[in-house]
Amino acid sequence: MNQIQSYISEHKSRFLNELIELLKIPSISADSAFKNDVLKTAETVKTSLEKAGCSKVEICETAGYPIVYGEKIIDKNLPTILVYGHYDVQPPDPIELWDSPPFEPVIKPTDKHPDGAIFARGACDDKGQMYMHVKAMEFMTATNQLPCNVKFMIEGEEEVGSANLATFVKNNHDKLKNDVILISDTGMIANDVPSITTGLRGLSYVEVELTGPNRDLHSGLYGGAVANPINVLTKMIASLHDENNRITIPGFYDKVEELSQAERKEMAKAPFSLESYQKALDIEAVYGEKGYSTNERNSIRPTLDVNGIWGGYIGEGAKTVIPSKAYAKISMRLVPHQDWEEITQRFKTHFESIAPKGVNIKVNPHHGGQGYVTPIDSIGYQAASKAYKEAFGKTPIPQRSGGSIPIVALFEKELKSKTILMGFGLDSDAIHSPNEHFGVWNYLKGIGTIPLFYKHFTALSK
Amino acid sequence: MNQIQSYISEHKSRFLNELIELLKIPSISADSAFKNDVLKTAETVKTSLEKAGCSKVEICETAGYPIVYGEKIIDKNLPTILVYGHYDVQPPDPIELWDSPPFEPVIKPTDKHPDGAIFARGACDDKGQMYMHVKAMEFMTATNQLPCNVKFMIEGEEEVGSANLATFVKNNHDKLKNDVILISDTGMIANDVPSITTGLRGLSYVEVELTGPNRDLHSGLYGGAVANPINVLTKMIASLHDENNRITIPGFYDKVEELSQAERKEMAKAPFSLESYQKALDIEAVYGEKGYSTNERNSIRPTLDVNGIWGGYIGEGAKTVIPSKAYAKISMRLVPHQDWEEITQRFKTHFESIAPKGVNIKVNPHHGGQGYVTPIDSIGYQAASKAYKEAFGKTPIPQRSGGSIPIVALFEKELKSKTILMGFGLDSDAIHSPNEHFGVWNYLKGIGTIPLFYKHFTALSK
Repeated sequence: MNQIQSYISEHKSRFLNELIELLKIPSISADSAFKNDVLKTAETVKTSLEKAGCSKVEICETAGYPIVYGEKIIDKNLPTILVYGHYDVQPPDPIELWDSPPFEPVIKPTDKHPDGAIFARGACDDKGQMYMHVKAMEFMTATNQLPCNVKFMIEGEEEVGSANLATFVKNNHDKLKNDVILISDTGMIANDVPSITTGLRGLSYVEVELTGPNRDLHSGLYGGAVANPINVLTKMIASLHDENNRITIPGFYDKVEELSQAERKEMAKAPFSLESYQKALDIEAVYGEKGYSTNERNSIRPTLDVNGIWGGYIGEGAKTVIPSKAYAKISMRLVPHQDWEEITQRFKTHFESIAPKGVNIKVNPHHGGQGYVTPIDSIGYQAASKAYKEAFGKTPIPQRSGGSIPIVALFEKELKSKTILMGFGLDSDAIHSPNEHFGVWNYLKGIGTIPLFYKHFTALSK
Repeated sequence: MNQIQSYISEHKSRFLNELIELLKIPSISADSAFKNDVLKTAETVKTSLEKAGCSKVEICETAGYPIVYGEKIIDKNLPTILVYGHYDVQPPDPIELWDSPPFEPVIKPTDKHPDGAIFARGACDDKGQMYMHVKAMEFMTATNQLPCNVKFMIEGEEEVGSANLATFVKNNHDKLKNDVILISDTGMIANDVPSITTGLRGLSYVEVELTGPNRDLHSGLYGGAVANPINVLTKMIASLHDENNRITIPGFYDKVEELSQAERKEMAKAPFSLESYQKALDIEAVYGEKGYSTNERNSIRPTLDVNGIWGGYIGEGAKTVIPSKAYAKISMRLVPHQDWEEITQRFKTHFESIAPKGVNIKVNPHHGGQGYVTPIDSIGYQAASKAYKEAFGKTPIPQRSGGSIPIVALFEKELKSKTILMGFGLDSDAIHSPNEHFGVWNYLKGIGTIPLFYKHFTALSK
């Protein structure tokens, strides 16, 4: 493809400003207080797709937040790429830990991003990475170099489990028909170590509510005589891991894919410094399942983490109370072959079974999704690998990610096509954390790499 | 004493209205947002003591909230009773569980209080019970029947550990010189089963802060590879009790007073129905230290309860985060001979020792106090017993309470006098809980019983 670099340098500041405007809208799907902002973001995405050259763009209503669909079909005989992304973002809290307001984007240099990074909630996950595709599309249409058909499906509920996307996909097989699905919602190892994510973990997210006495009690008059819901909840949660940090839910590991020593050796080749990993997090030691390395623990092994816990008096000062209720949000990351609905059921059954007499337990399944693995011998992967080689001058490393994009497994099931995960963010970009950011270099590099995937995929498809 | 009943019935509605006005002021000492209300409450108490006939009343400043002091010395040769109470209240949350606003008192009948109960935060603990003494004083002075000297010391920091009362007491031995200390901040078994509290538990209250990674992390990218502060905190807290619900802190039980079988038999005589106890709390079963009855567990045995826990995402919806920090407020109820400062140190040492590598733990001691036992052969106890016999027509049962009034032990140490705990509330009055209330009958009965204590104590002191 010609003129990619010249086009990017020419329009660089506009590319940045458009993204900054998008990041200013607090599209927090988890909090209904931001409903209008989420809807406004969908409209903004729609307009951007029209400007980028899509011939047909529409806001598709769902039971929840709408899906923005756009397409440009140039020739029925050419392959079709379906681009997926999301315009919603994680809640920004703890807000006090942000150095600048999460929805007032600023560009500042960092160690990893000497050319500057855009600091804002959603900068990397996923507004920034989604918008790379919009700008790549603009380049290809503006320079008449779009080599194949393209479809965009940008949703607004990824951060809350894509509850309504499944229905939309099931009901729109023809509309979404494609030869490969392209997603940028993952990361790469480093700016000089390009990598492509070939595996994702599944997810099961539940919320538990434990009820003891029917009212808050004075811990002096009742302490020691009735089950304290917080004490009990800590015991129940603690018992979910054994002394080797293995999860104790019966049958939890039954279907876990066990990698061969050869595969584990291959994985171990990815550059990794435990020292700098620990230094970056200010921790003295790592912690996890016995018998596995850090990179294995966060990619090929399933996990169980409490994402939130609360109960009793959490205000200033002291209150000697035994609360009536205690709560926790718990998520399990699953690996290929584990079925998230089965695991959710196993969790529910087990957690209810370990509740002592004197308390009532409610387990509310929140959402979930299956894990996924991309075959590296597929045309899609080969095209992506060539694109990186051309853009970065290096062959990318295939890498398993610990994250989850539940809908990837759904896409394969419903649309019968493979997904390629071309992520340009870095682990240090603090997605889901305060001070989330996305490198300016990475943003522009993504815009420059995506059209090369289009080119190679079209060529390899012939 | 003459005309007690007639005086009470004559002034009943005023007695109730004055208390209701006092209850309208949200004197929440734990929350600095209510500072002005706490101070206003002190002023109101001061005025009420003046009107009740104290010859000298003053607001004594402290490093925290002031202590209201009042006295009436009629004859240096007569005994002196020191009345202690507190004008601060517990925070009202969870506010949504109140049937009526906590600081808009209403009088409604209940099963246990057919004549009506005053519903408001502080109705029983301790504004209502403290104000009984003010009105008893009014009766005795108005009818020229005050048989001895009286001093009042009403503080505003009881619900946050009486941090500054100790200094005040230490610096005012002469001012506070007395022959017996009288407190109504406990309960009795039932309106037809009067009892006097002869034992109190001590308290050690700590707050723990656990820090893992230096920022919140994405639970997909880091889950399983780094210590999750919430998972770790639940494991650490869970380990504080063994399978018999005994506390595992080394040395915790070393100084615990072990009651003889005879004493335990005596205690077991107090009327108690496990069925109605469970029914009142809507629990299927009680829960506690193996080998002890419910009444023993909440009175003569030490306990460890989590009063509050929080960490991670606790808002609406889901957030897949590994938080940087997790917190808990933990209190231990202690029994006679356990030293609260020693136990606090033992907790700190043990809790820090069980923290795994990869997390940092901070234990912040909050406040505490020693347990206490009143000898039933003392003049004070005998006088109280006679007063109840005269007012209720029944000899009161001596009873150990699970609650703590840390300053009682301090009083004995500093002022060398015994404390008599004449409580008129019921366990069902929901102190420290939503819908706290105090029976109108109990309020008036208290006002009628207190002067009889003055009479008998003066007589027995001759």
